[in-house]
Amino acid sequence: MKYVYAFKEGNKDMRELLGGKGANLCEMCSMGLPVPNGFIVTTEVCTKYYDENKNLSEDVVREIFTKLEELERESGKKLGDNVNPLLVSVRSGARESMPGMMDTILNLGMNDVVCDCLAKQTGNARFAYDSYRRLIQMYSDVVMGLPKTSFEGLFENIKKQKGIVQDTDLTSNDLLEIIHYYKREYQTLTGHPFPQDVKEQVLESIKAVFRSWNTDRAKTYRRLNHIDDNWGTAVNIQMMVYGNRGTNSGSGVCFSRNPATGEKGLFGEYLINAQGEDVVAGIRTPQKIETLKEILPNCYMEFIRISEKLEEHYKDMQDMEFTIEEGKLYILQTRNGKRTSLASVRIAVDLVNEGKISIEDALLRVDAMRLDEILHPIFEEESLKAAPVLARGLAASPGAAYGKICFTKEEIQEKYQKGERDLILVREETSPEDIEGMHLAKGILTLRGGMTSHAAVVARGMGKCCVSGCSDLVINPINQTILLKDGSILSANDFISLDGSSGMVYKGIIKTKDPTGSYEFDTFMSWARDKKKLGIRVNADTPRDAGVAKKFGAEGIGLCRTEHMFFDEKRIFNFRQMIIAPTKEKRMEALNSLLPYQKEDFIGLFQAMKGEAVIIRLLDPPLHEFLPKTEEEILNLAVSLGVSFESLKEKVSSLKEFNPMMGHRGCRLDVTYPEIAKMQARAIIEAAIEVQEENISVSPEIMIPLIGDKKEYDFVKSLLEEEIHLVEEEKGRKVSYKIGTMIEVPRAIVKADEIANVAEFFSFGTNDLTQLTFGFSRDDANKFLKDYYENHILENNPFTSIDEEGVGKLVDLATRLARKEKKNIELGICGEHGGDPKSIDFCHRIGLDYVSCSPYRIPCAILAAAQASIKANQSK
Amino acid sequence: MKYVYAFKEGNKDMRELLGGKGANLCEMCSMGLPVPNGFIVTTEVCTKYYDENKNLSEDVVREIFTKLEELERESGKKLGDNVNPLLVSVRSGARESMPGMMDTILNLGMNDVVCDCLAKQTGNARFAYDSYRRLIQMYSDVVMGLPKTSFEGLFENIKKQKGIVQDTDLTSNDLLEIIHYYKREYQTLTGHPFPQDVKEQVLESIKAVFRSWNTDRAKTYRRLNHIDDNWGTAVNIQMMVYGNRGTNSGSGVCFSRNPATGEKGLFGEYLINAQGEDVVAGIRTPQKIETLKEILPNCYMEFIRISEKLEEHYKDMQDMEFTIEEGKLYILQTRNGKRTSLASVRIAVDLVNEGKISIEDALLRVDAMRLDEILHPIFEEESLKAAPVLARGLAASPGAAYGKICFTKEEIQEKYQKGERDLILVREETSPEDIEGMHLAKGILTLRGGMTSHAAVVARGMGKCCVSGCSDLVINPINQTILLKDGSILSANDFISLDGSSGMVYKGIIKTKDPTGSYEFDTFMSWARDKKKLGIRVNADTPRDAGVAKKFGAEGIGLCRTEHMFFDEKRIFNFRQMIIAPTKEKRMEALNSLLPYQKEDFIGLFQAMKGEAVIIRLLDPPLHEFLPKTEEEILNLAVSLGVSFESLKEKVSSLKEFNPMMGHRGCRLDVTYPEIAKMQARAIIEAAIEVQEENISVSPEIMIPLIGDKKEYDFVKSLLEEEIHLVEEEKGRKVSYKIGTMIEVPRAIVKADEIANVAEFFSFGTNDLTQLTFGFSRDDANKFLKDYYENHILENNPFTSIDEEGVGKLVDLATRLARKEKKNIELGICGEHGGDPKSIDFCHRIGLDYVSCSPYRIPCAILAAAQASIKANQSK
Repeated sequence: MKYVYAFKEGNKDMRELLGGKGANLCEMCSMGLPVPNGFIVTTEVCTKYYDENKNLSEDVVREIFTKLEELERESGKKLGDNVNPLLVSVRSGARESMPGMMDTILNLGMNDVVCDCLAKQTGNARFAYDSYRRLIQMYSDVVMGLPKTSFEGLFENIKKQKGIVQDTDLTSNDLLEIIHYYKREYQTLTGHPFPQDVKEQVLESIKAVFRSWNTDRAKTYRRLNHIDDNWGTAVNIQMMVYGNRGTNSGSGVCFSRNPATGEKGLFGEYLINAQGEDVVAGIRTPQKIETLKEILPNCYMEFIRISEKLEEHYKDMQDMEFTIEEGKLYILQTRNGKRTSLASVRIAVDLVNEGKISIEDALLRVDAMRLDEILHPIFEEESLKAAPVLARGLAASPGAAYGKICFTKEEIQEKYQKGERDLILVREETSPEDIEGMHLAKGILTLRGGMTSHAAVVARGMGKCCVSGCSDLVINPINQTILLKDGSILSANDFISLDGSSGMVYKGIIKTKDPTGSYEFDTFMSWARDKKKLGIRVNADTPRDAGVAKKFGAEGIGLCRTEHMFFDEKRIFNFRQMIIAPTKEKRMEALNSLLPYQKEDFIGLFQAMKGEAVIIRLLDPPLHEFLPKTEEEILNLAVSLGVSFESLKEKVSSLKEFNPMMGHRGCRLDVTYPEIAKMQARAIIEAAIEVQEENISVSPEIMIPLIGDKKEYDFVKSLLEEEIHLVEEEKGRKVSYKIGTMIEVPRAIVKADEIANVAEFFSFGTNDLTQLTFGFSRDDANKFLKDYYENHILENNPFTSIDEEGVGKLVDLATRLARKEKKNIELGICGEHGGDPKSIDFCHRIGLDYVSCSPYRIPCAILAAAQASIKANQSK
Repeated sequence: MKYVYAFKEGNKDMRELLGGKGANLCEMCSMGLPVPNGFIVTTEVCTKYYDENKNLSEDVVREIFTKLEELERESGKKLGDNVNPLLVSVRSGARESMPGMMDTILNLGMNDVVCDCLAKQTGNARFAYDSYRRLIQMYSDVVMGLPKTSFEGLFENIKKQKGIVQDTDLTSNDLLEIIHYYKREYQTLTGHPFPQDVKEQVLESIKAVFRSWNTDRAKTYRRLNHIDDNWGTAVNIQMMVYGNRGTNSGSGVCFSRNPATGEKGLFGEYLINAQGEDVVAGIRTPQKIETLKEILPNCYMEFIRISEKLEEHYKDMQDMEFTIEEGKLYILQTRNGKRTSLASVRIAVDLVNEGKISIEDALLRVDAMRLDEILHPIFEEESLKAAPVLARGLAASPGAAYGKICFTKEEIQEKYQKGERDLILVREETSPEDIEGMHLAKGILTLRGGMTSHAAVVARGMGKCCVSGCSDLVINPINQTILLKDGSILSANDFISLDGSSGMVYKGIIKTKDPTGSYEFDTFMSWARDKKKLGIRVNADTPRDAGVAKKFGAEGIGLCRTEHMFFDEKRIFNFRQMIIAPTKEKRMEALNSLLPYQKEDFIGLFQAMKGEAVIIRLLDPPLHEFLPKTEEEILNLAVSLGVSFESLKEKVSSLKEFNPMMGHRGCRLDVTYPEIAKMQARAIIEAAIEVQEENISVSPEIMIPLIGDKKEYDFVKSLLEEEIHLVEEEKGRKVSYKIGTMIEVPRAIVKADEIANVAEFFSFGTNDLTQLTFGFSRDDANKFLKDYYENHILENNPFTSIDEEGVGKLVDLATRLARKEKKNIELGICGEHGGDPKSIDFCHRIGLDYVSCSPYRIPCAILAAAQASIKANQSK
């Protein structure tokens, strides 16, 4: 087993063993780029280190020193030498980049003797002392875990004593004094002098890097980014080059293109007479990369050449670190640069146009998950920098917004009518009754509920920014205030700002800017549409949503939830009349009043979709969701409905359910109240006929929810057909329509063949299917799911990405059963998973016909579908 | 196609075509018994009649008249003849007996001419007139649907006028007068004279019988008894013999053995000078069959001979109708008699001992479902007759009880302490907190919840009578009264009586009598134990239950629900301390206080089961079930726990769940609070070691509930093993134990192979599995399930008998996946289905190792298991 690799022994494809940084250093070496020489301790040694009780075994140490000797031979320098000393840096480098999460130590190999020698050898005492004090400072922090503040305090004290502002103004004597104090401090805190054994320095640093793999912040980062805890980090040991050797030296970081916008051309900054850490630390303000052209024109030109060569080689935008030592340029690191969604699209399109990558590669390059960031407002960077963070919730629906705190729908409506627009709805949790308020608000903040709570789902549908489950805040409903964790208080009308892409909640106003469409985005999306196989439909309940989705490329409506249509103020009254109707006749009467509204809705949808499929789901939620809960609300409703308080209260309580998710809802409502299904069927078909008469073609598909048995399906289907035939006879016209069902209870999976026999389409409702398959209530599971993630029992929230091994197996089974029975049955998915790239890939693999998602997820879904198709072709 | 069969053309195996009654008439004919001749219109004609818009087609009519002519030829009589007229009866007869549900018309063929002729021919004018008036009365009712009261009123008026009490005292002139009034009434009500066309009479009567197949009461009866609506009824046309021809004539019904006790010997009654309907109608009090020996000894002796011949032929106890016409005995019907459970066992055992049937047949003869009736008290028949019915709920747990209404656990406890024992707990619904009260009550009545509600499950476990879901009653919680549907009111301390086997609720006290064990029962059960293959375990939480079950033949504990153990007053305090503990340390403290209690429970169970398997399930319900709900209760608890009201209220509200069934429960509790699982593991193993030290062997099996994933199982399993190893080390002793899981979420089905790999046993929790597979909340589904039954979408409650096509398929799948991975894995079922014969048959077929049910269902389960095994062998 080989533990240590020289740079010349590796290449870019060895990132699992050598880490990303190490593999790229090897690659650049073999490309002949000016990379300081060095070697890499593998990620396997990291695992071995932990397996062996945090020890470096003798054979590993032996191999490290063998490679070190090789490095000494090749460089002509020698670690700890008093003539031509070698200094090295020790850096972490995991398989996946974890920026800032792990440790780096520079200038190792320095001790009192070497320092003096270096001063003499370079004729630059200031440089030698500066390097030594940096080493002591970093080593104390990273290797010994001593408090940073002790050393920073000493450093600042000397500067103050000397009346110096800039570090570079410290003289060599000043630095010598600092070294003296540093060493004393080191001895005081550790009980030992600063190690003069340079080999010990190197070994201890390597161990420190391994230890940094398991800091809390690193573990948290890995959990959030799905990086395996067992991968471990490699350690890069590299000959030092010095950016702090004077005014013809410096260090910088630079992207080969703008990571925020994707614009072509170098984008970066550097500091003259500084080591790399200074650029990041922000002690001095770095200069823009362009200015290097004036100061060190040769270096600049070479950097441009190298940057282009690296892009050409890696076929992607590069994020590079460099150091200039006395006019000579060195590259210390390169990697594919992180970028905004906006930039990722532009860069991908540009790279295709430059002939560097194929369209397929371009499509695979962009993270579909983040694509909708491009469609939502974002905070202005300057304004964001100064904003105080109040709390953090879940990033439930992307976009940024600021506004006045409003606690109720009524507050929002009142302010909106007065012309105010910057309003944030803050609720314990939202319910369907809040939809009006959510619609008028700029953003929504809820204290309970997860990524798939009512607030989150509806907000995503509206393309509206939402932070959900922000449990650090407490609403005091009596005096209408929000209590923060630090004890301070926010009132109605105070301004807050929400970032629905990060889950952050800020105090006051942070200005936002609108996203801008671009030529590159349009090109990119047209490529994606070309490559995808899956149809992309939208979950939309209103003509407005349908219109937005159509603009984004939706090819039909995969789910229109008719219940949302009843929360409008004019309608809810009739709907409630329907619910409390004591007889079938009274219920019919109320339903008849609702008919024109429903019809109007459907006309709008058919007009918007111009002949594309429109799947309309029959009423789904339990009826109690439409009734008020508090005594006061019940009293008000009783008065307006003209019934007694007692009788209404009794009705409300008789509709109460222990587990509403599994209660009297879905098609079960139609079994009990066939007249509801009939009214909805009538509205759909009458609307279809009217739109057809405008010479717009229509393709209505009526979807029966929550079916678990063929007989149940047959029962509801005949109700619908009965009414449809009546309408067709009355109107003397026919409409071609489909009837199908949602597959969302596990029993429907087992019965999929029988049901397929009589249904024209299936739409997998994977939200409910996930709930029932796991036995997880979506509204309650967040409480314990965090314990599942922490204990690695679950890696993902199964409501976010479909659980392929469980729920997915069931969907696959139903697909096969259904296709066996009816080869061309239309199969799709309309749960939240329909907008999730990983789940879309799954849907492609099992051969569904389409996915359906919320309007603002359409571009994401199109891209994900294209990626799924490309990947499937590649793996053939 | 043949529509009509003469009696001589059929036999007893043709009941599908000829109905039960018809087939048996044919059989008796061919046995040479004295059966009046006749013919049968088939059940297929009934279906045809409905298919053809309620018409008898010409070919059917033609065949009826052909058979009628044959009957005339064979009898020498002629329908409508004025010399030797033939009269016939027309009776229904479906494939399965539906006693009293459908119609019969006697004396058809009578008109003015025939009546006179018959008077002359028989020299018995009274008989002729009585027969005619009976015909008009029945025909008006059954064929024409005229109000019964009109004719009954006329009849009573004449009797009053004449000062007559007994019908038999009416003279022939009186009867002539009645006929006159009847015919006038008939004409007034119908607009036509009473039909003198005797063929019309017959055809209309046949149609009337067909119509009676679809009366509401018949439909309801079929639904309740799972009789297919499409089977239809046959019609039996039979030559009349006359029990009303004088004092040497009569009619009666008689069983070949006592249907209540099973005792050998005739059991029946008869009336002299009467037609069959009079015996049933109860106008005169019939005489016991034994008295016939004195009055008509020849008839009596022949009847005994025939009865024995029929029993010998049918190998079962017979229920016979007979008529004596002028000293000659005729048998009009025979069928296998309905009987009580007690009788069914005794008869089956006697028939074996008499060499008439095999043990296998005997075991198949007894309805396993009803077997536990034998184990519970029943109402005294006399006392029951007079009792006014208040309402009807679900027959949730068998047995009968009367007692004072108590609305709370506290009321029961108070009265019980004063020495009162006859107490009925009446609750909206019960919760685990009511267990104490349920335990002290004689019976339980709930207004909400179904056959598998908390009340029902717990009551069955206790062997206590329970009527659940009695939604006709309304509790007024403020003045502690029950409002009845008729507006009347019951208060606390009023007496009611419950029949948990029928669901009936009566007013006042109905005396009960205890069941008595018998030699026959013991013999019968030992046969059943011999024949069964499935193991039978019990769901028991206390040593008392375990003891009862062991006595009934349980072979281990299949489910001990540890949560029930925490509701004891002493323990609930510590348990609540555990729930609200702010830190792990505080929680451990509270758990340590619970440890001795838990250990004590388990010691009792191990001692009771003496080495047989004891499956102990870890804590399952969500924690909020253990906390109070009202503000007042919370305040009281806060005081006794020494915490602030606000903090406790916040805790209670933070534990609240939208869908508790799918919430933070089962193994999810152990993931969040590993210390709970550890305490329970410690209690189990410490108890096992202590019992082992008493030289009693122990076989503890620790069951992890609600597992959906292998990783989840592994996590909890290692917690348990860690603690078990600690205990074993501390005590210096080892225990052999198993760890396994409940399979109750659909995901566990899909993952059954992976889980089987690490689990030592599976127990299918088909209650929850049914909930999640259908998406039916057990607590809410009753509201809509009735609509499902009515519309024939579902035939059975899937919580009562396992849904073989859905849930059953999943159980079967998991069984196969598990056995593929681990051939000898122990597989059983512990849901309510474990006590249901149909489900037990399923468990046998898919090859489970055992079923587990509540203590009082053990004999039923043993019998059902034996029946399953016998049937499986027979079908090989």
